[in-house]
Amino acid sequence: MSSSDIFIGETIGTAVLILLGGGVCAAVTLKASKARGAGWLAIAFGWGFAVLTAVYISGPLSGAQLNPAVTIALALTSGVWSQVWVYLLGQLLGAMIGAALVWVAYYGQFQAHMTDPEIVGTDEERAAVKAVEATEPAAGPVLGIFSTGPEVRNAVMNLLTEIVGTFVLILAVLTQGLNAKGTGLGVLGGLITALVVVAIGLSLGGPTGYAINPARDLGPRIVHALLPLPNKGGSDWSYAWVPVVGPLLGAAAAAGIYNVAFA
Amino acid sequence: MSSSDIFIGETIGTAVLILLGGGVCAAVTLKASKARGAGWLAIAFGWGFAVLTAVYISGPLSGAQLNPAVTIALALTSGVWSQVWVYLLGQLLGAMIGAALVWVAYYGQFQAHMTDPEIVGTDEERAAVKAVEATEPAAGPVLGIFSTGPEVRNAVMNLLTEIVGTFVLILAVLTQGLNAKGTGLGVLGGLITALVVVAIGLSLGGPTGYAINPARDLGPRIVHALLPLPNKGGSDWSYAWVPVVGPLLGAAAAAGIYNVAFA
Amino acid sequence: MSSSDIFIGETIGTAVLILLGGGVCAAVTLKASKARGAGWLAIAFGWGFAVLTAVYISGPLSGAQLNPAVTIALALTSGVWSQVWVYLLGQLLGAMIGAALVWVAYYGQFQAHMTDPEIVGTDEERAAVKAVEATEPAAGPVLGIFSTGPEVRNAVMNLLTEIVGTFVLILAVLTQGLNAKGTGLGVLGGLITALVVVAIGLSLGGPTGYAINPARDLGPRIVHALLPLPNKGGSDWSYAWVPVVGPLLGAAAAAGIYNVAFA
Amino acid sequence: MSSSDIFIGETIGTAVLILLGGGVCAAVTLKASKARGAGWLAIAFGWGFAVLTAVYISGPLSGAQLNPAVTIALALTSGVWSQVWVYLLGQLLGAMIGAALVWVAYYGQFQAHMTDPEIVGTDEERAAVKAVEATEPAAGPVLGIFSTGPEVRNAVMNLLTEIVGTFVLILAVLTQGLNAKGTGLGVLGGLITALVVVAIGLSLGGPTGYAINPARDLGPRIVHALLPLPNKGGSDWSYAWVPVVGPLLGAAAAAGIYNVAFA
Repeated sequence: MSSSDIFIGETIGTAVLILLGGGVCAAVTLKASKARGAGWLAIAFGWGFAVLTAVYISGPLSGAQLNPAVTIALALTSGVWSQVWVYLLGQLLGAMIGAALVWVAYYGQFQAHMTDPEIVGTDEERAAVKAVEATEPAAGPVLGIFSTGPEVRNAVMNLLTEIVGTFVLILAVLTQGLNAKGTGLGVLGGLITALVVVAIGLSLGGPTGYAINPARDLGPRIVHALLPLPNKGGSDWSYAWVPVVGPLLGAAAAAGIYNVAFA
Repeated sequence: MSSSDIFIGETIGTAVLILLGGGVCAAVTLKASKARGAGWLAIAFGWGFAVLTAVYISGPLSGAQLNPAVTIALALTSGVWSQVWVYLLGQLLGAMIGAALVWVAYYGQFQAHMTDPEIVGTDEERAAVKAVEATEPAAGPVLGIFSTGPEVRNAVMNLLTEIVGTFVLILAVLTQGLNAKGTGLGVLGGLITALVVVAIGLSLGGPTGYAINPARDLGPRIVHALLPLPNKGGSDWSYAWVPVVGPLLGAAAAAGIYNVAFA
Repeated sequence: MSSSDIFIGETIGTAVLILLGGGVCAAVTLKASKARGAGWLAIAFGWGFAVLTAVYISGPLSGAQLNPAVTIALALTSGVWSQVWVYLLGQLLGAMIGAALVWVAYYGQFQAHMTDPEIVGTDEERAAVKAVEATEPAAGPVLGIFSTGPEVRNAVMNLLTEIVGTFVLILAVLTQGLNAKGTGLGVLGGLITALVVVAIGLSLGGPTGYAINPARDLGPRIVHALLPLPNKGGSDWSYAWVPVVGPLLGAAAAAGIYNVAFA
Repeated sequence: MSSSDIFIGETIGTAVLILLGGGVCAAVTLKASKARGAGWLAIAFGWGFAVLTAVYISGPLSGAQLNPAVTIALALTSGVWSQVWVYLLGQLLGAMIGAALVWVAYYGQFQAHMTDPEIVGTDEERAAVKAVEATEPAAGPVLGIFSTGPEVRNAVMNLLTEIVGTFVLILAVLTQGLNAKGTGLGVLGGLITALVVVAIGLSLGGPTGYAINPARDLGPRIVHALLPLPNKGGSDWSYAWVPVVGPLLGAAAAAGIYNVAFA
């Protein structure tokens, strides 16, 4: 695959992934959305089928890695690092485009949500909060549509949760090749991987919101910081390293196990 | 494929699509339906598996396009326009038949729902509303079973939402061929496309109800205007152009990207 | 396939179908069930995956028809009627065995449910109801775990709803063969059919509970009439012909369309 | 397959199965989990896709039996018992590792949940309960994240429920080989089996929580007894034999039917 195909494929694919993944979070969260309150099952299936859609769209161009954890794990198991930066750049750019498109698709909902005093508080309440938060701005009310955050904030435990979740994802991705060997069914891999992502969402998403993908978390967090959303609050940068480092450690662990036990 | 196979296939397929798609909206909405209140997850899976059912039924006859946005995008990428009108006519006719069949299947539920004063108001209330609405009739209480409508009415934003949703659908449809190439797995395409439609419903359906198909919206809207439903209210014709134009623009954008980056 | 393989396959397969299909109704309905209140989405997926399980178990033995509507439609399109009665007998026997197994698996739940005065009424209330119902016994409180029933009782409309639902099912089953032709993917048919059944459940199940299979309704109704359930109430025999005749008419209509347009 | 590949594959696979299966129970149950209250549909899909993930990860190494009931049934139908103990040991070890990983991933949630007086009672209340339970310690408040338990406690009926559920699972697993014969689609078996597990969860999980796998229940129960969870309560050892014996009897019954009717 050429570098330009890889870059374009990863950019489009990751944009679709985040558009649909962030989209389901917006759909379930925002005021004036028909899907408001649809709950965690909608979140888990939404992100899973976001992966499915993105994988089949970008597969023919770039092989659909769409996740720095996948890219690093494949480099660690194959030993080939030459195109890694092309993948990573496409993934980060795509994630940012996808997050911006969520804002476009849900523009009216964001406006309705972020100007509702019952949701964002009155002017006085927000001013009071702002004064207190001067040194440590809290996560804003719609940051969860862009990036992940922990329910119980504890860096070590949050990191462990992301490591465990990503370990499962990456081991499933690496073993896809073994399952498809000699069956000509490689094209099924996108469906299987999508259902694995549903599984991880249902089973391991509870504590931190399962980033399991550094680009999925960092790109939209940057977009959250840049977008002109009224009353958006902080982007929770103090947490931002966890969903980057955790998935990379989980990927490295899965690649190590794969090299020892499966290769 | 012969013109008659195409016309019959698209008519039957789109009728099944709208029967099942409109059916799930009826099931979740109407009084005296066992599925009442089943929520957005039911809607999203219902429409997705409606696509699946319709695709496998009509695929052998017409190739199962079932959506003017798909037909236009395939013409734009293949350059072949000769049968386009046969597809479009079959799709519109099928959508109208399907919407009428929803009314047949849920006849008792429509009757119970539309004569319940708690739902449609008392005679006096309806008369008062009618007087006010003389110049701009609002969407009726079951129009959502037939056609889509926005939660926040803003033509530009609603159009953008439909463009974005259809863009994802069409790009996924166009790249199916690339995924199936050489694997003999073209028959899986219906399942993948169905899950993409579930994804779009979960993730991008919140603002406008995701028409992403001009025939899906226009055909049933015509049937809503014609059916003898008691207290049915207006068919919201002022919005009707958005779910026609938006999907066609989204399809054109996806075809353009496909021609540049994938072909 | 030998007659004995057909009979055994259809008996086991339909027993599994009804065990799982009736089972999900019990799971969602009965007191002291962990799944109580899981709702219509659980019902629709439960019946769909019941079909999937039953089809893959009985497919190798009997071809997994499991439904008199399927058997009649295949006979009408193939012209081969020689084994039809073997199929039908296996299906009815299997459906009865499956319904009895639901009772076995949920024995404690049935006991808890049917002796709870808040659910079945006090002794006096039941006696009063019985006196009124002497001539027309109503459907009992757990009949829905065994057989279907209408939300709005109207024989013509209920029949139409069953005809429409079965028509979709049978057309999807008949066209499976065309989709699989030359692709060697016939084995996927069970999955596709299962998702079609989920679709029909979500979209057309609201009015009558979607029998779409005479054996699925009649066999368990007989078992309901025979089982020693406390306070079980009537088996609603006046409705029993609808879910038998409707599906057969829907199957005949689908076979007719298939012979004209697809064959 | 070598004994070491089998042992490693079954250990990793069963660890993933229980990590994701126990994980969804934690996600839906525990305080401070984003998925809290997601309900039975989440449980059933979570366990089903846990099976899917575990099967595709361990399939290439060990064939992904992951369940002593599967291992015994395959030995009974094939007559080959030589590696059975390797499978069983890997499964039990893996189940224990998986249960411990659930505790790691949800550490903060367990802490928050188990120290909340509204959930575990005040110190006085717990002391009072403890005094009464001296001879028969009840199941603790999070035991359900580790092991199964009955809603209506009756050894015979609970055993029957587990026998019926496992019978369906094992018959579906045994017939997979027949479905795949000559189609090269063996790799689809994991997806089909996963959906069968969803079916069993939805349909037969209500009374006992569907162990249908001795290792799935016993391994995590041992871990529950060992873990330093505050206020964890009893591990309900008096019930522990049911989800071991029931699945084995169900497996034997399915193997018997298979040998008579299908082989």
